[in-house]
Amino acid sequence: MASAAALAHPNIAFVKYWGNQDESFRLPSNGSISMNLDGLFTRTKITWNENRKSSKDTLTLNGVPITGRALQRVSNFLDLVRQMAGLDLRAEVVSENNFPSGAGIASSASAFAALALASTRAAGLDLEPGALSRLARRGSGSACRSIPGGFVEWTAGTSDEDSFAATIAPPEHWPLVDVIAILSSAHKTTGSTEGHALAGTSPLQAARVNDAPRRLDLCRRAILERDFAAFADIVEADSNLMHAVMTTSSPPLFYWQPGTLAVMQAVRAARLNGQPACTTVDAGPNVHVICEKASATKIVKMVGSIPGVREVRAAQAGGPARLVEVE
Amino acid sequence: MASAAALAHPNIAFVKYWGNQDESFRLPSNGSISMNLDGLFTRTKITWNENRKSSKDTLTLNGVPITGRALQRVSNFLDLVRQMAGLDLRAEVVSENNFPSGAGIASSASAFAALALASTRAAGLDLEPGALSRLARRGSGSACRSIPGGFVEWTAGTSDEDSFAATIAPPEHWPLVDVIAILSSAHKTTGSTEGHALAGTSPLQAARVNDAPRRLDLCRRAILERDFAAFADIVEADSNLMHAVMTTSSPPLFYWQPGTLAVMQAVRAARLNGQPACTTVDAGPNVHVICEKASATKIVKMVGSIPGVREVRAAQAGGPARLVEVE
Repeated sequence: MASAAALAHPNIAFVKYWGNQDESFRLPSNGSISMNLDGLFTRTKITWNENRKSSKDTLTLNGVPITGRALQRVSNFLDLVRQMAGLDLRAEVVSENNFPSGAGIASSASAFAALALASTRAAGLDLEPGALSRLARRGSGSACRSIPGGFVEWTAGTSDEDSFAATIAPPEHWPLVDVIAILSSAHKTTGSTEGHALAGTSPLQAARVNDAPRRLDLCRRAILERDFAAFADIVEADSNLMHAVMTTSSPPLFYWQPGTLAVMQAVRAARLNGQPACTTVDAGPNVHVICEKASATKIVKMVGSIPGVREVRAAQAGGPARLVEVE
Repeated sequence: MASAAALAHPNIAFVKYWGNQDESFRLPSNGSISMNLDGLFTRTKITWNENRKSSKDTLTLNGVPITGRALQRVSNFLDLVRQMAGLDLRAEVVSENNFPSGAGIASSASAFAALALASTRAAGLDLEPGALSRLARRGSGSACRSIPGGFVEWTAGTSDEDSFAATIAPPEHWPLVDVIAILSSAHKTTGSTEGHALAGTSPLQAARVNDAPRRLDLCRRAILERDFAAFADIVEADSNLMHAVMTTSSPPLFYWQPGTLAVMQAVRAARLNGQPACTTVDAGPNVHVICEKASATKIVKMVGSIPGVREVRAAQAGGPARLVEVE
């Protein structure tokens, strides 16, 4: 029985991934930049079952046995690992998130990053970080950004070989905090995988993609220079561009709720009033309010007082996916 | 003393005007389609003052003397009429709207349509409808659509000569109702004239403009065939495209309020539930809910019960700008 366990953080994108140039390889239409979220993590243990009579992978998530599409997605991913390692064994995967699903934080990034690391190590492979990031990408696009630590850029690339993420600055480079305003725990009506496939139906997606190198340059530079004003402008613009594509696809995808707009507008008003904070919204209703650590307490209080906000969580920049002891 | 009076309706655009190819001539970046709103109107009386000592135009709006920028805009418009008529007289303009400003209905379209008709007639000119529409366009772009009656298309054109609006179907062609959900009477933070000038700063405007012929075809055909399902899809898509450009311009323009989204989502849910209704939002927070007359009573009640909606108004398709008796 070969086992390994790994931990990975979810991440919040500042320049966002929306749409694929290749759906099956999850090659994104444009590059993206994100920050790992410390304190939040998925912890995954995998055991390659040497009993060859075992014909199926098994998955337990937060103590609950999982079957159906979610298990199939994990099995498909493990097929890639089996192929790389020349392995003909089934796996037992036991995974836990320390944040509830529906807490406004996508768990597929941390889940497939942790699974990529644990499954390859347990199979006797020791992939270099770029190869591990490429592998994680096959499970969930944004998972490739949860492999390296701190502030991360995913280079879109043009093939499986050159599409992976790498650190552009370590976590301690800039003490940013993601203050997550949680509005709703309702499940998404359209998941990200389905949503990505719709991006091309918007007449605006090509323009958004063509403009991405400019946004990546602005965002990367703002992070490297710790220039919050420049950072806020490009982060909000990029989020709005993604939702512009979403709301103009066929069918249109509306992830914003009334409370989403209320938080976006309150933060924008606070910034015009001298408070350094900005917002970004993923494929869900919750708002990620980004600020510097020095003003986080104030922002948490402000955001928590906005009608419609049910809960607030805060996370600083987190480290890379890493092996942990098998319990 | 040469006097004339005219009345014109505001209009609601189904394929929207946003951005100019030429700011000073108000040549739009793309064509648009609208419906005049019956029951709502601006009534304007003009007198060319033959006392040549009078050196200034005067404007009274809803009984209040107006000076400053609003008067200057009217004077600049009257300069065009003076030039056409070879006139060297100042004017007294008395205008009234039967709908309050800030009722969710832009008044500049009906205002400049009524003024174009009254001022030219009082100056002894009898312009054919296309020329009148072109003239109204110089005062406010969308005013050119309030000159003809019913369902109207403004052909973008490429010069002052070929940019004007014409009827594509008379008011009685299709008994549509615009149910206006009024959320706020607060004044816009960014007026339309300023907003149009920002359209080109969005990386999405070119794609929106390039796609406009397709939307115009779909919308025109849906109106001519009275196909509500096709109409609803293209009207909502077009509104979302305009707001996509607005929210991604520099600076971004957010006209949607939390209540705007609440109404949009309630109407969308009702439509998925079999109720033929759709929404469109102009450069303000209020929502125009378009439905057929048969279901208008139901829609008015439904919209009025949505939290945040302060008032509801309803208007059917209206006629052209027309002369009225000078009181």
